[in-house]
Amino acid sequence: MPIIILLPFIDGQSSKLWTKLDSLKRKLKHAEAVFGQSKTKDKPEGIRPQHKTGFLGLVGAKVDTIDNSKEKIKDLSVKLQAEQKRTIAEEQEASAFAIFNNRAVAAEVSQSAIATIASKWRTSQAPEPEEIVWGNLSMPYLPQLFRKFGIYFLVFLIIIFYMIPISFVSALTSLDNLEKLVPFIKSIVKIKVLNTVLQAYLPQLALIIFLALLPSLLMFLSKLEGIVSHSHLVRATAGKYFYFNVVNVFLGVTISGTVFNALKKITKQPGQIVSLLDASLPPQASFFITYIALLFFVGYGLELSRLVPLIIFHIKKRFLCKTEEEIRDAWAPGPFNYHTHVPADMLIVTIAACYAVLAPMVLPFAIMYFALGWIIVRNQALKVYIPKYDSGGRMWPHMQARILAALVISQITMLGYFSVKKFVFSFLLFPLPIATLIFAYVCNKLFYTAFRVTPISLVSTDLKDMPSVASLVEAYTPTCLTPEDKFEDAEKFEDARSTATSRTSSGITSPA
Amino acid sequence: MPIIILLPFIDGQSSKLWTKLDSLKRKLKHAEAVFGQSKTKDKPEGIRPQHKTGFLGLVGAKVDTIDNSKEKIKDLSVKLQAEQKRTIAEEQEASAFAIFNNRAVAAEVSQSAIATIASKWRTSQAPEPEEIVWGNLSMPYLPQLFRKFGIYFLVFLIIIFYMIPISFVSALTSLDNLEKLVPFIKSIVKIKVLNTVLQAYLPQLALIIFLALLPSLLMFLSKLEGIVSHSHLVRATAGKYFYFNVVNVFLGVTISGTVFNALKKITKQPGQIVSLLDASLPPQASFFITYIALLFFVGYGLELSRLVPLIIFHIKKRFLCKTEEEIRDAWAPGPFNYHTHVPADMLIVTIAACYAVLAPMVLPFAIMYFALGWIIVRNQALKVYIPKYDSGGRMWPHMQARILAALVISQITMLGYFSVKKFVFSFLLFPLPIATLIFAYVCNKLFYTAFRVTPISLVSTDLKDMPSVASLVEAYTPTCLTPEDKFEDAEKFEDARSTATSRTSSGITSPA
Repeated sequence: MPIIILLPFIDGQSSKLWTKLDSLKRKLKHAEAVFGQSKTKDKPEGIRPQHKTGFLGLVGAKVDTIDNSKEKIKDLSVKLQAEQKRTIAEEQEASAFAIFNNRAVAAEVSQSAIATIASKWRTSQAPEPEEIVWGNLSMPYLPQLFRKFGIYFLVFLIIIFYMIPISFVSALTSLDNLEKLVPFIKSIVKIKVLNTVLQAYLPQLALIIFLALLPSLLMFLSKLEGIVSHSHLVRATAGKYFYFNVVNVFLGVTISGTVFNALKKITKQPGQIVSLLDASLPPQASFFITYIALLFFVGYGLELSRLVPLIIFHIKKRFLCKTEEEIRDAWAPGPFNYHTHVPADMLIVTIAACYAVLAPMVLPFAIMYFALGWIIVRNQALKVYIPKYDSGGRMWPHMQARILAALVISQITMLGYFSVKKFVFSFLLFPLPIATLIFAYVCNKLFYTAFRVTPISLVSTDLKDMPSVASLVEAYTPTCLTPEDKFEDAEKFEDARSTATSRTSSGITSPA
Repeated sequence: MPIIILLPFIDGQSSKLWTKLDSLKRKLKHAEAVFGQSKTKDKPEGIRPQHKTGFLGLVGAKVDTIDNSKEKIKDLSVKLQAEQKRTIAEEQEASAFAIFNNRAVAAEVSQSAIATIASKWRTSQAPEPEEIVWGNLSMPYLPQLFRKFGIYFLVFLIIIFYMIPISFVSALTSLDNLEKLVPFIKSIVKIKVLNTVLQAYLPQLALIIFLALLPSLLMFLSKLEGIVSHSHLVRATAGKYFYFNVVNVFLGVTISGTVFNALKKITKQPGQIVSLLDASLPPQASFFITYIALLFFVGYGLELSRLVPLIIFHIKKRFLCKTEEEIRDAWAPGPFNYHTHVPADMLIVTIAACYAVLAPMVLPFAIMYFALGWIIVRNQALKVYIPKYDSGGRMWPHMQARILAALVISQITMLGYFSVKKFVFSFLLFPLPIATLIFAYVCNKLFYTAFRVTPISLVSTDLKDMPSVASLVEAYTPTCLTPEDKFEDAEKFEDARSTATSRTSSGITSPA
């Protein structure tokens, strides 16, 4: 019989208390470091840092930060311990992790339907402890489903109408409008150089900021969908971002540059549709060639030099970071951003495949992009960024599906272009997209099941070192419910976490 | 550990021998009955039936049928026994049934991925012994897949171009052409009455015969797909026949009756598209009302009276059947023809849903059709036809999907019709088809998994009476490999078969 760990309610009081306690501890360390650095030779007693207790530290009575924090921490620790005990004992949700002593049985159960009505009892393989999205684990089936459809609809709207808020913000941030809204800007605008610069770049700045915020927005929306593992979250975000790229960059540039312009001319000379299309499709290729070249000159340059993170680090170090920990955090490169890199590369694949026939000059640039990427991005992924978890290569089926989709689009484009050029054997290309679709289907059936579930043949032998149940229980306890003393003992804890990651456990979640 | 029954090669020598032996036994019985009936009072010694040994009994030496058959049966029995032993021992295929002593484990294994590459080792729940399509059990994955795509393409062609062979055959069977092809017809044609009748009905006869053969053709094609259970075969055939009905009856009549006629008028008066569509859509409704009325007056009448089978039975009894067994076979109503009844009913659902808004008069007829069907067809299915197997209600998800598809089509039709009629609030109907699609998705996810696989909670308790392994092995042995003496002992055999049907066993097939 498996050992069942019932999942307690995560987003409750204990989570809030834990976050408060954590930030207080950081504040204390920061204050202590500030105090330590203030002890110069001239002033050996130093200056004890102080802060106001009111809103944002702006109002209220002034107190000594170190003493005040220590006091509060003591107070909160007791509260948190009591709350943790209460949560574990009383606030249990209708979902649980199940620990099996046999890997094959775990794999079988995680793949099987349990209840007649699927929403009554669902099972799935537990994500690795590092990548669990705790808040989503206990979400019942139907709310999850409706959230999913809601989010899809929202993302659809964002993709289609994304130009509207941007042009609205651009209009709003044009100087004339800003002067009306925020009168004190007038004094700045009087400086002529500044005026010119702002006039030229403010709208573009709005676009850049919106585009930079988009991945985070999509990640946030994907999280609302109720996805339980972080690697799945990254894939979901990458998918949404890819559609955004295809619609707004690929289709946006191609169509607005060709069909719209062409339509105007066609209405004037309706007889010359074919020659007009011939003339107006290829010119867009030059835009995309520039786009790809820009990406690998500027994009890879920035990626390799890590210039922006370097500047940010030095600014942070100079003005914000006081403790060792804070400096380490500021320096840490973080995990590789698959959710922005993958859709960007998939966009290049789509562009290269679709324009290969119309304008073969796109190919050397695409090849250069991927050849340089093979060296630069691979180096960054392997040697610079620090992954938090291993998704077991599940990003590949996601990418292969998009590569094949790009291929199908390019084959259809080719077919259309050859027909426009009146190539008599163009009908011979007709089986191509169908063959591609069948290939995608066969790949999906044959190879990608093993990415979604664990095949039994892989886990039919027992491991030499089975992780202890205690270490598994510890690893699968959310941070906000980990006893404080254990959490401080970070070394031991990380050990337990890494032992638990060898595909040994299977999670059962069962929202009613 | 489960008991594995390796599957021997079915379509080999032993199958041919078994078929030959079976037909010889029937021939012997028939001859004996003929001989018995020939013993009248005048001729107490009777006439021993004789036949010629050559092609189709038309040429060759005349022999005594009874003696000849007995001799051949003796000969073949020995051969079959030897061949059966050899087949079971030597010609084993790469697939097998696995018998588990625990139902939950069987359910789990049948739902799990075994090998990393799915085609190397596939599992699925074993069909009931009565409904196994033996020849398809050992088909490897990729050939099965490519056959499936090939068949789909072929069916697509049949559905789209079905009018072409029919009109070809119709043209061929017109009297003038027949006279050229088969000169001896000329003498028949000279009779004036016959000439008129043939001239009028020959082309229609070709259509009727082709339509009557279609379900069998589709069933044959579905069998080629490599489907392993008969209930699945019936569903696959029903699906194909439904598409045929929708394209050739529903769309065919609607479009050729409206859009084509309308297009002609539109080219003359391009400004009046809207009013023309308004005028030409509803008239087709009268055709479908007549169609439905015809179905329930003539169709249900024939179904209830079973007039055609009665006539066929009396013809057979008079001219062909001699033994008790043959008469019983001729009288047997056979199983209910789900593969023709379900698509026919689904077509009525589609017609009723789509024309409900345009011509509400279709509704009372559709209601009448289903009300009478509830009484008549239910009676026939429960009390007349004899089912061979129980598919566990798996036809329902198939039907529900088609009912919902009909609903979506009708909602889109309604939306279009309201827009044509310039109803200003017609956009309010826009969420309807989306809601229907979401409902279909939720139903599929929530309720229909349990139709495809066995949920573990249903089989987590052991049965009171577990069938013996021996009876299971016997039930899951193909007829042509059953020892002859056992096969004759029909009572015992059927007992074993019915014991084996309580979802106790799970099949593993593993083509390399």
